[in-house]
Amino acid sequence: MEVIQVLHMNNGEGETSYAKNSNIQRKIISATNSTLKEAILNIMCNNNKNMPESIGIADLGCSSGPNTLIVVSEIIDIIDETSRNSGISFPELKISLNDLPGNDFNDVFRSLPSFFDKVKEEKGAENCYIVGVPGSFYGRLFPQKSMHFVHSSSSLHWLSQVPLGLGTNNAMSSLNKGKLYISHTSPSDVINAYVSQFQNDFSTFLRSRSPEIVPGGRMLLSLMGRSSIDPTIEDGCYYQWELLANALSNLVSKGLVEKEKIDSFNAPYYAPCPEEVKIAVANEGSFIIDHIETFEIEWEASVSSNLSNEKILSSTGQQVATTIRAVVESMVENHFGNEIMNDLFSVYGDLVDDYIYKKRAVYVNLVVSLKRKE
Amino acid sequence: MEVIQVLHMNNGEGETSYAKNSNIQRKIISATNSTLKEAILNIMCNNNKNMPESIGIADLGCSSGPNTLIVVSEIIDIIDETSRNSGISFPELKISLNDLPGNDFNDVFRSLPSFFDKVKEEKGAENCYIVGVPGSFYGRLFPQKSMHFVHSSSSLHWLSQVPLGLGTNNAMSSLNKGKLYISHTSPSDVINAYVSQFQNDFSTFLRSRSPEIVPGGRMLLSLMGRSSIDPTIEDGCYYQWELLANALSNLVSKGLVEKEKIDSFNAPYYAPCPEEVKIAVANEGSFIIDHIETFEIEWEASVSSNLSNEKILSSTGQQVATTIRAVVESMVENHFGNEIMNDLFSVYGDLVDDYIYKKRAVYVNLVVSLKRKE
Repeated sequence: MEVIQVLHMNNGEGETSYAKNSNIQRKIISATNSTLKEAILNIMCNNNKNMPESIGIADLGCSSGPNTLIVVSEIIDIIDETSRNSGISFPELKISLNDLPGNDFNDVFRSLPSFFDKVKEEKGAENCYIVGVPGSFYGRLFPQKSMHFVHSSSSLHWLSQVPLGLGTNNAMSSLNKGKLYISHTSPSDVINAYVSQFQNDFSTFLRSRSPEIVPGGRMLLSLMGRSSIDPTIEDGCYYQWELLANALSNLVSKGLVEKEKIDSFNAPYYAPCPEEVKIAVANEGSFIIDHIETFEIEWEASVSSNLSNEKILSSTGQQVATTIRAVVESMVENHFGNEIMNDLFSVYGDLVDDYIYKKRAVYVNLVVSLKRKE
Repeated sequence: MEVIQVLHMNNGEGETSYAKNSNIQRKIISATNSTLKEAILNIMCNNNKNMPESIGIADLGCSSGPNTLIVVSEIIDIIDETSRNSGISFPELKISLNDLPGNDFNDVFRSLPSFFDKVKEEKGAENCYIVGVPGSFYGRLFPQKSMHFVHSSSSLHWLSQVPLGLGTNNAMSSLNKGKLYISHTSPSDVINAYVSQFQNDFSTFLRSRSPEIVPGGRMLLSLMGRSSIDPTIEDGCYYQWELLANALSNLVSKGLVEKEKIDSFNAPYYAPCPEEVKIAVANEGSFIIDHIETFEIEWEASVSSNLSNEKILSSTGQQVATTIRAVVESMVENHFGNEIMNDLFSVYGDLVDDYIYKKRAVYVNLVVSLKRKE
């Protein structure tokens, strides 16, 4: 499976679309608001320098739907407020929206004319330019020293590939019996493959951004993470994969899925702890960590308060299942086939209901604010 | 009708798609090849300055399909050859692909990974960045002084709107009886409205590009045009609209279209003569015309040599009709309704057959190479 070709949030406006099921990602963006403000202020009011007349900003993994322009809107608000307070004119903003080539950029682009109208009306700003940049952030995306601020939310937990050695047809591909991601039953070879793939990928990410960001520029990243050093602990988001594996096993017992299919799927995903991020940053060497923390968001927070009739009738577990489906379906479908998707996420919803009845289920989110060395 | 919302080439890969019917536009691009080379060489080897380390390039009205990356490919070839001959390294290229927000950018973006692989393999160049920029070129698109070369082919004959006063529900909207564009029967009010709209739009276009292009930067524009000063003469492309009006009248006689519908449609299109372009350039004042000419391409040239089975069975007129359909359908459909499209372009194909049997039918193309004043 080529992640770059397969991974995308569910397109369109349907009940299982990402556009209608991205409430949790919006809450994560809101939770990092104060860190965002601090980073932007730092770029605008860097003690040693004048405010840049033109500011390069990138959002990596922008996706499509109601969240895509939220961060951009917040950044524009902060810059507008700071400019007014300082009595300077609104700077030229060069904003790049990045995602993989399979993302629905058409949807994003069609929303831009009304977005520009709103910015012009509310801020009087006409010097704001937005472009779409398709490509993997595990590689160069932007010209030399073109960025002052790089943002990424809910994207960097996706690895560039299934961990080396665990890909389909590899020797170790079926080592992780009955699981889709690291679990307490995972052999150490599997865990090590995941840990190394994250270190490789995160280093590649930093190395790719390093020449693109101006000295003193900032980067704010939030991604699924975990609070413990132990990657097998039942903490945070990895349990989403555990429950999905259980749902697939249920379909095996019904004869709808072959057992071997589960063994050979390894999610190109990793939820790191802060220490792992610190190691990668230190090894790469061109960034300084300004701030790093983890915070928790309850699974139920993913359920929208603005429910369609269809959703009001479904359980919390089913609703949580749909929010996960909007994110992972492209990849799961690619491996297991389209036919079982409805059954799978229905069983998965029931398992989520059971789980949240017994335990407090949270997503652990890791947020790190970085500064490009001068 | 809002041109920005309605106008787009036919999407997809079907028989009436622009992707399968853009042969003529490719030939127009080829015909301007030597002018393109001259403009690029001029940027790279400007006597007074060193070659820029980073070159900004834009293609306006890039569309989607096989033509989208042709100009970019040619530019990369010229830059690669010139760099090698001069013994300098391949410069950083910042390429912006622009079209209206309704363009199928998803299709363009999905073709980029293999395009980058090809550039890397053939030229060894990894410092080539391509972004998508949705928006109307009758307004600012790019940051200050960010472009060294701006290209546009087969796009600038589209006006920003139906000429002022001729739009639906306007006093003069039905003055141009039985016609879709300027014709020998058009009243002078209609002709004047078209002439002024072109002058306004082309001036707005130049005024928008002026701050975006570096001093000494170049612009190469090719668009449908005419060789005579008289806009009503039966020369060049306006006859496409005349025959389409005749095809619609035919459907009126069959009771499929209301006569008033034809009277109230005025195409947001203008094919200027070189003198009109010279006037707009002189009035705006920030560009110098380096070269301007018109050239003819036979209608039959639009017929692909690589025909599907379905097309081999259809007449030349039908094939020409399909190439026109791929371009104008979004707009014609918006006014006349989807139901009559097949009938309309079938009748139109027959009229084209009659016409080319009697006369030599050519597209007149206008090409102008401009330099941004230093």
